[in-house]
Amino acid sequence: MKVAVVGLGLIGGSMAIELKRRHFADEIVGVDSDSVNAEAALKIGLADRMASFDDAVRECDITILAVPVGAAVRMLPHVLDMYGQEGKGCRKIVMDVCSVKEQMIRSVHYHPMRGNYVSSHPMAGTEYSGPWAAMPGLFDGRACIICNSEESDPRAVKVVENLFDALNMRVIYMNASNHDVHTAYVSHISHVTSFALALTVLDKERDEKHIFDLASGGFSSTVRLAKSNADMWVPILSQNRDNVLHVIDTYIEKMKDFREAIADFDEDRIRELIESANKIKRIIR
Amino acid sequence: MKVAVVGLGLIGGSMAIELKRRHFADEIVGVDSDSVNAEAALKIGLADRMASFDDAVRECDITILAVPVGAAVRMLPHVLDMYGQEGKGCRKIVMDVCSVKEQMIRSVHYHPMRGNYVSSHPMAGTEYSGPWAAMPGLFDGRACIICNSEESDPRAVKVVENLFDALNMRVIYMNASNHDVHTAYVSHISHVTSFALALTVLDKERDEKHIFDLASGGFSSTVRLAKSNADMWVPILSQNRDNVLHVIDTYIEKMKDFREAIADFDEDRIRELIESANKIKRIIR
Repeated sequence: MKVAVVGLGLIGGSMAIELKRRHFADEIVGVDSDSVNAEAALKIGLADRMASFDDAVRECDITILAVPVGAAVRMLPHVLDMYGQEGKGCRKIVMDVCSVKEQMIRSVHYHPMRGNYVSSHPMAGTEYSGPWAAMPGLFDGRACIICNSEESDPRAVKVVENLFDALNMRVIYMNASNHDVHTAYVSHISHVTSFALALTVLDKERDEKHIFDLASGGFSSTVRLAKSNADMWVPILSQNRDNVLHVIDTYIEKMKDFREAIADFDEDRIRELIESANKIKRIIR
Repeated sequence: MKVAVVGLGLIGGSMAIELKRRHFADEIVGVDSDSVNAEAALKIGLADRMASFDDAVRECDITILAVPVGAAVRMLPHVLDMYGQEGKGCRKIVMDVCSVKEQMIRSVHYHPMRGNYVSSHPMAGTEYSGPWAAMPGLFDGRACIICNSEESDPRAVKVVENLFDALNMRVIYMNASNHDVHTAYVSHISHVTSFALALTVLDKERDEKHIFDLASGGFSSTVRLAKSNADMWVPILSQNRDNVLHVIDTYIEKMKDFREAIADFDEDRIRELIESANKIKRIIR
């Protein structure tokens, strides 16, 4: 199987490593519009060779769009158009790995080649980006969501399931709208809270140099995601606007609950809030 | 040197391990009002033996108060009273390791034995608590703050510096009021934001079971501190009220900046906020 990976960053690059290593792909054809990244990806060995977008889509059995969702949503109809030019019987598959799904799926809902597209989201990542951030094992044991699978050809879904099986992921099926609510809660909000925490401390740091010295392990862990890349996160927050706004509003209410309890020296209420929050132990090991 | 450790939890227990291992202490006398913890501490080997609070203070050269700050603030004057009963020349030392310093220090400001107290805060920890959470190496290379050292006997400060040297910590000197501002920024606020994040997700989880499955690495890291113990955190947030409220207010403003930019689909502004937050890379490796 020839696999085109468009965007050899953290996710695309890590997929490329594993798909080759676990013999799912015979050849990885890389595409990256950034010439420095493209060169690095080749040097690191993420791809066997680089090609233009159109050449890669034409040559490969599967095209993985591993670019920020703002770019992916523009590329997807173009890939399906190219498949359409090959005729109704084209069995090539295009998939994306973006963190917001509804807009992607809506953009090709009526496309005659819609069945050749499988919408997926491997739930894995780090705060780093670019080909240097790619690493083996990133997906091991993690969940991968396939959205609106009934709109894809069953054969295409089967191939993509095998692909995620090669990455050692558990596949979960969900509709795009539920997916986008869930990721707002378990992923997008954590990024916004980390960004806000970083901004708060950096504001202070202008006049207080000691903060550098004192940053504790707890702070580092909480603020880690604030290193995340704007190219990736601007379109996510923008495309998942309504869900993210809803979660931010709930979150600000919780912050205000703490504020009020602390302002009132209401230790019973602070304890109640903390002990309720402690229930997260059930979810997070 | 005989060292009494009052409270053999994460911090006290970890100090006990290292002080014995690195030959700073010849004997560790443990004190723990919780009988299960006391038994566990002995079994794990954190202390050579357990004793009552008064016996331990009487017998030991150094008493380390490693209990929540609400309890420590009540114990401290009592220890200094006991030292006073031994006479003006008593050379024993009491120290605490709490995360808020001003109220502790104010509580003994006029005590005739004030010089025997050294106020310190080793900046290390995990989200776990109790004797089972104690571990070697917890303090390695981390910062430790000594507050208002000019109010302590220089000899006592010297001994405590040696103690932190044995723990392999870098000592930083600061007045209590600055300390409390800094810890509000680099530690206390991260706990509040994690608690609030946990509450937000748990609220949702009532009707959405998938969140369990989907919790990603980024979410786990951001919400990690929400497992932290209420016994420890209620008095911290309460004693450092004014600083914490100030930081919460700044933080809520930052969240609202994001909210507004996302609500307005203002991608340039979202990018600006994220790229400003990215500057945290300078601080956090």
